[in-house]
Amino acid sequence: MSGIRVGVFGGGAWGTALALVAARAGRTVTLWARDPDVVAELGSAGTNAKFLPGIRLDPRFGATGDLAAAAAADILIAAVPAQATRGLLRDLAAHVRPGVPVLVAAKGIERGTDALMTEIVAAELPGRPAAVLSGPSFADDVARGLPTALTVAAADGDLAERLSAALVSPSFRPYAATDVVGVQVGGALKNVIAIASGIVVGRGLGASAQAALTARGFAELGRLARALGAEPETLMGLSGLGDLVLSATSRQSRNFSLGIGIGEGRPVAALTGTGAKLAEGAFTASVALDLAQRHGVDLPITGAVAAVLAGRLSVDAAVEGLMTRPLRREGT
Amino acid sequence: MSGIRVGVFGGGAWGTALALVAARAGRTVTLWARDPDVVAELGSAGTNAKFLPGIRLDPRFGATGDLAAAAAADILIAAVPAQATRGLLRDLAAHVRPGVPVLVAAKGIERGTDALMTEIVAAELPGRPAAVLSGPSFADDVARGLPTALTVAAADGDLAERLSAALVSPSFRPYAATDVVGVQVGGALKNVIAIASGIVVGRGLGASAQAALTARGFAELGRLARALGAEPETLMGLSGLGDLVLSATSRQSRNFSLGIGIGEGRPVAALTGTGAKLAEGAFTASVALDLAQRHGVDLPITGAVAAVLAGRLSVDAAVEGLMTRPLRREGT
Repeated sequence: MSGIRVGVFGGGAWGTALALVAARAGRTVTLWARDPDVVAELGSAGTNAKFLPGIRLDPRFGATGDLAAAAAADILIAAVPAQATRGLLRDLAAHVRPGVPVLVAAKGIERGTDALMTEIVAAELPGRPAAVLSGPSFADDVARGLPTALTVAAADGDLAERLSAALVSPSFRPYAATDVVGVQVGGALKNVIAIASGIVVGRGLGASAQAALTARGFAELGRLARALGAEPETLMGLSGLGDLVLSATSRQSRNFSLGIGIGEGRPVAALTGTGAKLAEGAFTASVALDLAQRHGVDLPITGAVAAVLAGRLSVDAAVEGLMTRPLRREGT
Repeated sequence: MSGIRVGVFGGGAWGTALALVAARAGRTVTLWARDPDVVAELGSAGTNAKFLPGIRLDPRFGATGDLAAAAAADILIAAVPAQATRGLLRDLAAHVRPGVPVLVAAKGIERGTDALMTEIVAAELPGRPAAVLSGPSFADDVARGLPTALTVAAADGDLAERLSAALVSPSFRPYAATDVVGVQVGGALKNVIAIASGIVVGRGLGASAQAALTARGFAELGRLARALGAEPETLMGLSGLGDLVLSATSRQSRNFSLGIGIGEGRPVAALTGTGAKLAEGAFTASVALDLAQRHGVDLPITGAVAAVLAGRLSVDAAVEGLMTRPLRREGT
């Protein structure tokens, strides 16, 4: 398999880490980045100081600003933000051969269309099979070679297994799955629950309250995922529970950190505006709510997060709503 | 309900916090402690400096070293370690009126008998209905009045609701449940998974590996619980997932801290021996393994923890076994 060429799109932390993963797995890798400075630094110094500071990218891989050059590959990995994925794939359309699989590494649902990432691949790159990479992972941990277990999901199980085999190394363990809906809804919603968890922590309510909220958030994530056709077992796995645990408890998570900032009373606009680190959950909250309303599902935590982000609800009112519920039997 | 008398047994952190909970809920509370110094300090200063340092116990409650005095109540709460619960209940038998409910606050399974806490109540205090308190909660958070949501489970749902109503206050939210097996197995097993999670963290493997292990641990906990008759929904709730998240990610957890110490290479004997803080999971691991073998359930994480604790497996070998599995589809 050493002849397999992998094109990775996105010069941020995740794209760079995944290029490194593919190179460690023995693939021939080209990373496309929009920013010429990133391309130049990857090519010369073998580092990405802006997005992965302090990490030497060893083994090295090729870097380019030319979409067509990176698209001349056997496997493509799209590692730009969820809301930018359609634009990338549209730009790629002219360069991707039929039958070349596209593995999307972003976790989110598209605003405006409510589309999952695999649905965007199907629409923009017909004839190229779609897959998604999800599961508990920080780009930094992955780049440093710390052990990580993830999910690669594709409707075609054989494709999921082929992509897993193309990326596996001692420190990076992908597991193949076929429930593309469950994997994507879990990966998107966990970011919203992570924001809620961060709000509780930022408000100083303690670890017990955070854990209670996370458990309720997991139930909420499961309700929406099942309504959209996910299999319950998927939600219990790496891409559901595993990723939720990571995002809702670790300060390395951008979404959890955003929630902490909100809980501490910092202005939402400053936390999510220009120059702030992208927290995918800030986009996903309102999209998930829209999906939930169309499917008749109740998402109180997601609703509170969306309302706080939109400035329609104070943090105190949100926390009050998140933590107190009428006394009744659990699960009802 | 203000006339309801609650007897709490156990002068450690959890017993003291629960006496405070009952007092905040407006009950008339007597705390029994074995240690005369604890009784004296509770009575004079209204503090428990050894177990809840820095926390004023307000509102105050009665403290006694006389079992019979504390047992003259309408509700009893047993808050001694799981392995000491049978001894306490046996001592109490002569003093507890028929029909008085006994709420056990320990999370564990008895060594030697594999008995759940409710089974010990039935055996030692026949005619007194058994209930258990579980869910994500640190005694410190509870004592400080930080918001906490827990599960009160009893086979008789009306009893679970009555006990919940007797303890509820703005910061302490008990939810009634009837799946006593699910609540107890979840509460016991999460301690073992927390030790495993701590080992991974102590070994420096990072948050991604910790999250992957926690997700697999949750699956393992669910397998044993279902084999013993638990309802799957229980495991998704506060006493299952919620408590696992808290214990497997927070350094406030004794079990997680024990795992960290082991992962860092400190000698197990020093971490679990005399003078060390009690980590219930260190007892539960071997008991759970015994139960699992009798029911034909595979618990690889629990097995690794038990073997490390018994000195039969090195930490390196355990970590290797925990983190690498053959490449195959998830969930199979």
